[in-house]
Amino acid sequence: MSDAYSPERLKATHDGIKWAATGPGVIPAWVADMDLAAAPAVVEALRRRAEGDLGYPTWLDTPSCGPLAEAFAERMARRFGWDPDPSYVRSYSDINQALQVLLHVWTRPGDGVALHTPAYHPFLKTLSDMERPLRPIRLEPDGDSWRFEVPDLSGCRVLLLVNPQNPTGRAFTRAELEELAEHAERHDLLVIADEIHADLVYEPHRHVPFATILPGRTVTLTSATKAFNLGGIRCSVAHVGHPELRKALEAQPPFLYGSAGLFGVEATVAAWRHGDAWLQETTALLDRNRRTLAERLPSRFGYRVPQATYLAWLHTGVPGMAATIEQDAKVLLSDGAVFGPGGEEYVRLNFATTEGVLAEILDRLSRLP
Amino acid sequence: MSDAYSPERLKATHDGIKWAATGPGVIPAWVADMDLAAAPAVVEALRRRAEGDLGYPTWLDTPSCGPLAEAFAERMARRFGWDPDPSYVRSYSDINQALQVLLHVWTRPGDGVALHTPAYHPFLKTLSDMERPLRPIRLEPDGDSWRFEVPDLSGCRVLLLVNPQNPTGRAFTRAELEELAEHAERHDLLVIADEIHADLVYEPHRHVPFATILPGRTVTLTSATKAFNLGGIRCSVAHVGHPELRKALEAQPPFLYGSAGLFGVEATVAAWRHGDAWLQETTALLDRNRRTLAERLPSRFGYRVPQATYLAWLHTGVPGMAATIEQDAKVLLSDGAVFGPGGEEYVRLNFATTEGVLAEILDRLSRLP
Repeated sequence: MSDAYSPERLKATHDGIKWAATGPGVIPAWVADMDLAAAPAVVEALRRRAEGDLGYPTWLDTPSCGPLAEAFAERMARRFGWDPDPSYVRSYSDINQALQVLLHVWTRPGDGVALHTPAYHPFLKTLSDMERPLRPIRLEPDGDSWRFEVPDLSGCRVLLLVNPQNPTGRAFTRAELEELAEHAERHDLLVIADEIHADLVYEPHRHVPFATILPGRTVTLTSATKAFNLGGIRCSVAHVGHPELRKALEAQPPFLYGSAGLFGVEATVAAWRHGDAWLQETTALLDRNRRTLAERLPSRFGYRVPQATYLAWLHTGVPGMAATIEQDAKVLLSDGAVFGPGGEEYVRLNFATTEGVLAEILDRLSRLP
Repeated sequence: MSDAYSPERLKATHDGIKWAATGPGVIPAWVADMDLAAAPAVVEALRRRAEGDLGYPTWLDTPSCGPLAEAFAERMARRFGWDPDPSYVRSYSDINQALQVLLHVWTRPGDGVALHTPAYHPFLKTLSDMERPLRPIRLEPDGDSWRFEVPDLSGCRVLLLVNPQNPTGRAFTRAELEELAEHAERHDLLVIADEIHADLVYEPHRHVPFATILPGRTVTLTSATKAFNLGGIRCSVAHVGHPELRKALEAQPPFLYGSAGLFGVEATVAAWRHGDAWLQETTALLDRNRRTLAERLPSRFGYRVPQATYLAWLHTGVPGMAATIEQDAKVLLSDGAVFGPGGEEYVRLNFATTEGVLAEILDRLSRLP
């Protein structure tokens, strides 16, 4: 297997940042793109659009982007038993933009934001750039999983809930979400629920949309880009359940934050309406990969099998191990330090790759000095 | 010719707003999309991307969007003898977004904005939504063209220059632009130059980028969407020559205004680098069409042959004629009233269509009671 594997060959078919920024001979297992081809239904929809009308779409000046909002609402109902209101949908480039818009419109510098840590690092940077102090909700190892205790959230204005969680791969239980909801009520928090990994939850775990628990306080953020591997299309959805926040957004100049393009909407709608066969195959592969890691990862790596996502959060016990692993094993991982407090002795491994490449990654990690 | 023409047949191949919002049997000559297929180089680039890597592009976190800025700078140098700095480029969804961002960051409610009228109506709506009072620079008929006198611009903070102008199709001369520049200096104005029609200027007229006259005061806005008929891709460029404004934009949260997607950048770069053969054919057709209008328009329509754009600004002498024309001649035009002061007795006709369809439009207009 390892003889046959050539990073250079794979690199030739990929021109994104995951591969471009990867050194010669190195396997990239860092940026959260998959190494897999997109769903045929998505490729076909994009190709058809490339050959079709490229002019102004009918939903151009509709804040909910028409078919985008409808496909989102249908999918939430079908998969998660939640009935969102399509008219509450707004489109953004991505979840990072949506978060900055919401914080910009709803909060001020100094307003605290509660967030589980370790955390998706661009969110930490947003809080620091925008001077919204982080109130960490620390995830602590707990047997083969992770648990948290909610600290006092006085002074917070927002709960930024990432569920399923990145990087630990926790899919929070209804009981955990209900506890968070109590805190949100007690401190009058806006809940910004980043649920971009919701389609990547493994049995027997279940995704529970936070909006089913506290609809009037919650903005749900999601996108097809994660589960369907479409990071470049720039199309995400915000379902704004909070009525006052909706008013505040409506009071903004209507084009100020831009809008999704034809190809972003086309790809998202195709993925959500016609991509589930591909998604099922892909999550089956990812499920096998997360188990393969449990069987074959060298024992120096502490590994709790994730309940969701294609990210493995590995304890190394040593800060800065990503650089060592890149140099000695030629595998590029994300260093845990950027994920905030408690991440220093970890690395994050992206296992959304073929079984062959994962075997090669494991071979290389097992030969680490 | 008119027997062969079927709006329904054309409608079957178009699903954008121009056709979707058009009644049965009516020819749409309103929304500023062309009825023509996009450049083969653009379609091919989009198709290739649909089948390629859809993950995060290398330029994801680069505010200038890398290849977008480079293709823009090369094109300006090649076509207009202007050497922009690619590092001054920012990408936005479209020019409406870019304008709202610039006004949001640089001005406050009450700050005046000078703008030639009649004007592209979404700009008028932006000024009114954002409470930036309009200071009209009135375009007056002048023989077979249009002239203007600059009023006192005290109290203005911005000159919003649309050149080539929409709806009159004026391509302003260097002398006119230099006069505007003097006013901009005198009143310390930021100049926002919307030059989206720059590629659609007819001989012997010439496009002069305003940034070649007042580089340090000018933000140039442009996009491939107009000349290359790509309204749906949502990708425009702002070249921010004004150093203080650049600083003000850099001080904003980095993702707040979103960014162009893979397909928007791909299409724009392909159009600008490989679309000129198509553009030359297309402008030759548009040039013939603008002359055909001069020959065949019924004399009830006052028509000054545009120097640029594919828009004919027709004097009818009667307010509300667009509704009458739609009902009686089954041709959908834009009513002049929405273009602001002085537009009431006009209609705007989009002649970016085939010679056959234009002939049918002219037949229908000549049969008006």
